[in-house]
Amino acid sequence: MNGFSLIYEGFDPAEEGLREALTSTGNGYLCTRGTAEWEDADGVHYPGTYGHGVYNRETTILGGVPVLNEDLVNLPNWLVLKLRIEGEDPIRLADVELLGYRHELEIRTATVIRELRFRDRAGRETSLRSRRFVSMADVHQAGIEWTLTPQNWSGRVEVVSGLDGRVTNSGVARYQQLEGRHLGPGSLRTFGPEVIALKVQTRQSNLYIGEAARTRVRGDRGDRGEPFAVDRSLYQMEDYIQQVLAFDVWQGAAVRVEKMVAFFTSRDPAVSDTLAKAGTSVLRYAGFEEAFARHASAWDELWRVCDVRVPGDDRVQLLLRLYICQIVQVCSHHTADLDAGVPARGLNGEAYRGHVFWDELFVYPFLNFRMPEVTRGLLMYRYRRLGEARAAAREAGIRGAMFPWQSGSEGKEETQRVHLNPLSGRWERDLSHNQRHVNAAIFYNVWHYFQTTEDLAFVRDYGAEMMLEIARFWASIAHFNPERERYEIHGVMGPDEFHEKYPDAAEGGLRNNAYTNVMVAWLCDVAQEVLSLLPATRADALRAKLGLGDEELRTWGDMSRRMFVPFHGDGIISQFEGTSSGSTGSCVPRAMTRTATSSPSRPTR
Amino acid sequence: MNGFSLIYEGFDPAEEGLREALTSTGNGYLCTRGTAEWEDADGVHYPGTYGHGVYNRETTILGGVPVLNEDLVNLPNWLVLKLRIEGEDPIRLADVELLGYRHELEIRTATVIRELRFRDRAGRETSLRSRRFVSMADVHQAGIEWTLTPQNWSGRVEVVSGLDGRVTNSGVARYQQLEGRHLGPGSLRTFGPEVIALKVQTRQSNLYIGEAARTRVRGDRGDRGEPFAVDRSLYQMEDYIQQVLAFDVWQGAAVRVEKMVAFFTSRDPAVSDTLAKAGTSVLRYAGFEEAFARHASAWDELWRVCDVRVPGDDRVQLLLRLYICQIVQVCSHHTADLDAGVPARGLNGEAYRGHVFWDELFVYPFLNFRMPEVTRGLLMYRYRRLGEARAAAREAGIRGAMFPWQSGSEGKEETQRVHLNPLSGRWERDLSHNQRHVNAAIFYNVWHYFQTTEDLAFVRDYGAEMMLEIARFWASIAHFNPERERYEIHGVMGPDEFHEKYPDAAEGGLRNNAYTNVMVAWLCDVAQEVLSLLPATRADALRAKLGLGDEELRTWGDMSRRMFVPFHGDGIISQFEGTSSGSTGSCVPRAMTRTATSSPSRPTR
Repeated sequence: MNGFSLIYEGFDPAEEGLREALTSTGNGYLCTRGTAEWEDADGVHYPGTYGHGVYNRETTILGGVPVLNEDLVNLPNWLVLKLRIEGEDPIRLADVELLGYRHELEIRTATVIRELRFRDRAGRETSLRSRRFVSMADVHQAGIEWTLTPQNWSGRVEVVSGLDGRVTNSGVARYQQLEGRHLGPGSLRTFGPEVIALKVQTRQSNLYIGEAARTRVRGDRGDRGEPFAVDRSLYQMEDYIQQVLAFDVWQGAAVRVEKMVAFFTSRDPAVSDTLAKAGTSVLRYAGFEEAFARHASAWDELWRVCDVRVPGDDRVQLLLRLYICQIVQVCSHHTADLDAGVPARGLNGEAYRGHVFWDELFVYPFLNFRMPEVTRGLLMYRYRRLGEARAAAREAGIRGAMFPWQSGSEGKEETQRVHLNPLSGRWERDLSHNQRHVNAAIFYNVWHYFQTTEDLAFVRDYGAEMMLEIARFWASIAHFNPERERYEIHGVMGPDEFHEKYPDAAEGGLRNNAYTNVMVAWLCDVAQEVLSLLPATRADALRAKLGLGDEELRTWGDMSRRMFVPFHGDGIISQFEGTSSGSTGSCVPRAMTRTATSSPSRPTR
Repeated sequence: MNGFSLIYEGFDPAEEGLREALTSTGNGYLCTRGTAEWEDADGVHYPGTYGHGVYNRETTILGGVPVLNEDLVNLPNWLVLKLRIEGEDPIRLADVELLGYRHELEIRTATVIRELRFRDRAGRETSLRSRRFVSMADVHQAGIEWTLTPQNWSGRVEVVSGLDGRVTNSGVARYQQLEGRHLGPGSLRTFGPEVIALKVQTRQSNLYIGEAARTRVRGDRGDRGEPFAVDRSLYQMEDYIQQVLAFDVWQGAAVRVEKMVAFFTSRDPAVSDTLAKAGTSVLRYAGFEEAFARHASAWDELWRVCDVRVPGDDRVQLLLRLYICQIVQVCSHHTADLDAGVPARGLNGEAYRGHVFWDELFVYPFLNFRMPEVTRGLLMYRYRRLGEARAAAREAGIRGAMFPWQSGSEGKEETQRVHLNPLSGRWERDLSHNQRHVNAAIFYNVWHYFQTTEDLAFVRDYGAEMMLEIARFWASIAHFNPERERYEIHGVMGPDEFHEKYPDAAEGGLRNNAYTNVMVAWLCDVAQEVLSLLPATRADALRAKLGLGDEELRTWGDMSRRMFVPFHGDGIISQFEGTSSGSTGSCVPRAMTRTATSSPSRPTR
């Protein structure tokens, strides 16, 4: 099992936020941060659960100005599992003396494991081992298993098992001024003595999320362990439901607590009411051990397809597998059948608000050769938003399709119009939407998916239309400079994400960003060929639909050969044209870099 | 345009229901019956609009017994367009003298056209031409165009343009005792002076449906006709919104009224709030003529792919094209990206409650060669319900997956437990769920899709798992009869849909239905081979997941060679084993046929 464990020894409050993100567990449908089950959101811990496509839009009034913001919603916390000993307050890491603490992501099965031994204020020593997974075999299933051993005492304990719909989006400090309440009042139900269930609705986007949990206590023999004599009591409020399981424990005798959870949203296919579906599903679930075995078996198949081996460097091998695990947690074969993009921060936290930028460009080369159906599914996220991209172009007086820099539920531009400058503390105009190169990336992604898979059906039905509309967009924002006899593109921001405008310019964007212009030259060349790949019926229909004439195709050909690319005097490509208007740009002035740095368009990763 | 028009001359109230069904217009996402825009639901007319997957479950208390029923929901009526002349009651077909009337489905573009000329009670003669389409170019778009000409008068008219959420499911007489209210209270909005919008929610399944309509009046010059001076007034109630457009008309001068409609459900990808999406979409829509041209162009491409020509018989040619048009209206390329099955009555009415039986078996041979991506999408409807089929088998003590005879939102058995016997007027047990042959059909459909397309990726990721679980199901309900040395299957109902049990039997089902047994022999043979098609990684993983051993595969091989098939004494295959227990069944007794006929399991088509 070498190279499959990310391990943190000892608890460090300052590091816990990062550790939670890196030990997230997910299955390409649902992802939950690696927060200890018994901790609430505070400055140290942040239980967060996110699902593809579950966005909600809220308006915050800032100084009288309405600021719209769409968030990937933090979903009801299904982790809640707290231990009370002899009626005292629930155990928290901050309140006990830790005699041992280990926090691990078992990468092979994306399992988060905590092993701790602690002494409470009454001097009782207890050991607790927690294992948690989000099933790769059944996307709607998750499970927690506790193994609890009183080391120097016997007595009565209570385990609080809850589903908490009171959560908000409050995981990122710099968004704190924005409205973070996305969930409306909930409805609750029980399904028999063991199962509690909760349903909530997002406030604006009308999505329902149903969760159900079955909690059991057994002796330490896995699914075959003796059921324990347990007293159960129920507590419900508007958007929170819990069961308290009270039972006796004996010194040195391990007890297993397992919480199996079902999770559904109203975006899921084959679901009617999410509450009933979650409840009836969890009633059918196997015990933790059997469910975990199926989950592990599904990951086995994934590793046979996805593993990359680097002999001789254990650290590189570990990191590589950690990253593979992280990608697959967010983009698995289960993702292919969803309407999902690749959020910049995965489903591991709230930075970038769960928006989809251009990061997929870096993910697809991995997926294309291993699970191309996932790339196909993710590209469909773009195709389904082609109409919105066309409308965005049209409203800006541009032809073709202009995909947004930040995309969310509908494919509108979700880049904030203002952003908080963390140095000045002021809200300023956000110019980062000028990163039009996302449109080159989408074209590139479609083409490389096709190059890898030869999936002509995708290009015929979906891909070609995107490629042609993107080529048209670039031809529309480029202009021919007769002096240089070159095509130029002004007013865009390059992929460095810092240089958003010239120092004293009123408007955002730069002239002739080299990356952008080279990509456009390349894609104009490819775009000319796309139609010739298609069956004649389809090519004709597409040309008719888009009103695409020979003249336009000729322009693309011309652009492919005559895009302007700025060079330094010394033959090195400039990042973009400098502040001087000369055709050979100077080096990027440091002063400008700093100006831009003071208002980064994306939060620190 | 030969062979592309279904035409009814003259209005016949007794025929109108059938004509409405046959002149439905749809695009594979949304379908609306060919009801005149100005008519409400009554004994003659039934405006109905249906969308794939929009089901709702209601319980009716019948004689103290709760009867559950899931319907494909009749959605808010977007057609509402009524004409008032000089402040009188709206024109209805029953209230005027028809001087001419023609009702047509223009098959090439699935356009419903009505041309009428009528004399009202005040002696005014008016002609009205209505054209209506549901766009094949933009699935969310529909449009109505009226051309209105006062023949012997001038004066003031009002056009009432509404969106009506007060509709129920009440289109089928024999379901009248069942709860037909599926929509909860609505919310309403206007978007500028021309656009009204309505949102409703299904009562149990929590689906939202948003509709918006933009109504304009112009001179008779298409999209370029002069806008008319129109007085608009708005009326809103909880689940209904209308605009009244009042304007002057002159004898002999044609006026065009156009209503463009946007339609969204919360199951659609890339939609946040359905009300806002519908409103903003319809604001962007082109005029009727331009929108219709795009629609017609999309149908042109479809006909190039789908047309079947039969020279020399105009009637056969017409019927063939009508059926092709009907299929594509329900199952188009737009359907491929939905979670949609093939409802027995398409999306053209409420018979069979919109449930999915085995009818896809007859549709796929057409689609496989023309639009295989549609078959693939529809087969995914089954795959997404494999878990439910497994649970159904498990709960019946059977292994593998048992797909239901009637399937709806979730893939549970939606066949009613009781049904109304139309002859006796009594509610009786419904035994038709024993038509297990649907499970052979699904296997057959996956295999034939693969045979046609060689889409191995589909078989690898989805198809093989269904096929193996179905083969296992059949092996589980079959038993080996050592006397005959043959495998037998008892307790099933064949595809004739009438013979549901032996005359005096307490339980439903027959012994050794020949169709079923032959299909099972065939599929057991194919099932053995499926694993060998897959990459080794996948085959191993699938065997591990299903716990599929060599012994089980051998049993399938044995079944493929030794299924019992009943024969008449004269060497002809019997439909099933007769009431005698002999190995050669007798002819099906007529008495039994009649017994069964009196309680048909499906309503008359």
